[in-house]
Amino acid sequence: MQLLKERILKDGIVKPGNVLKVDSFLNHQMDIPLINEIGKEFKRIYGDTPITKILTIEASGIGIACIAAQYFNVPVVFAKKAQSINLDGEMYCTKVESFTHKKVYDVILSKKFLHADDHVLIIDDFLANGCALMGLIEIVKSSGATLEGAGIVIEKGFQRGGDTLREQGIRVESLAIIDSMTDESLTFRE
Amino acid sequence: MQLLKERILKDGIVKPGNVLKVDSFLNHQMDIPLINEIGKEFKRIYGDTPITKILTIEASGIGIACIAAQYFNVPVVFAKKAQSINLDGEMYCTKVESFTHKKVYDVILSKKFLHADDHVLIIDDFLANGCALMGLIEIVKSSGATLEGAGIVIEKGFQRGGDTLREQGIRVESLAIIDSMTDESLTFRE
Repeated sequence: MQLLKERILKDGIVKPGNVLKVDSFLNHQMDIPLINEIGKEFKRIYGDTPITKILTIEASGIGIACIAAQYFNVPVVFAKKAQSINLDGEMYCTKVESFTHKKVYDVILSKKFLHADDHVLIIDDFLANGCALMGLIEIVKSSGATLEGAGIVIEKGFQRGGDTLREQGIRVESLAIIDSMTDESLTFRE
Repeated sequence: MQLLKERILKDGIVKPGNVLKVDSFLNHQMDIPLINEIGKEFKRIYGDTPITKILTIEASGIGIACIAAQYFNVPVVFAKKAQSINLDGEMYCTKVESFTHKKVYDVILSKKFLHADDHVLIIDDFLANGCALMGLIEIVKSSGATLEGAGIVIEKGFQRGGDTLREQGIRVESLAIIDSMTDESLTFRE
């Protein structure tokens, strides 16, 4: 997605430890017109699939998923990190290791909101080692729903998460795949 | 907001400890057309104010803030709970006690995204004792920005957060204010 790549080149900041900061437009401050274009692009890519629900994980995926869901006319469900007293009843549970925060989260989703007849599109802002996405895929499998694929805004192609999942036959569509990045340059996959 | 009140009566579930579960449409599964109506209502209420930025707090405020921001044509910034290695530079920091989770969070916002010339609308899903909202207000004050007010989806009027803030002269507009709730009945403020 050209608009997104240009924005990453303009406003993204590479930090030590393979961190790409895009907090001025994607995951701290959010540029809503850009995210609308991202939502439309996910609809263009997945428009031929019978999506009934968009699944994401808190926190930074939620806004993108909600904006995108307007183009699919489906509800959003977001998996929650750690136990909440408001989340009773039966849950799908999995564990996710965060690349950014260097820790392991319990991730939960109420069984009420994902069923065997659902067709699920997973949306998230980042894909690096793929731990969060694998956790969400595990939840979809547990529910018996059909996973139509994942829509990722930015994939770090030099980490192996996306390619590993594609090799397993999972449809992973990323709007910008970064194959290398240094302080001086950032290369997108063609 | 009549549509919202009807939805709370239809799908809200009162749990012990003054907990109102609205997770089927607001903060776990999200009904996007309803949230669009909520966004339009915030715009109707605050349409006469020169909002430049919508501020919320992760996680469940983000989707509502993003949808609402479409009607204001402004960016969203969301305050983050706990420190992240990706959040460097100067921060506004405050502490917030969560009614739901019974613990105290550090809440942070990058100083890059809130300035003295901003006019801020705070949006959140719930207002009960007001701790989260007071934390966000403190951040706005620290930035020197103008606080235009808060837009809350559901206020628990029988807790004192909203009324305390109104007595301090802060504009707090809640789309549904619950004055009492039991297993059998739920009463909205007129």
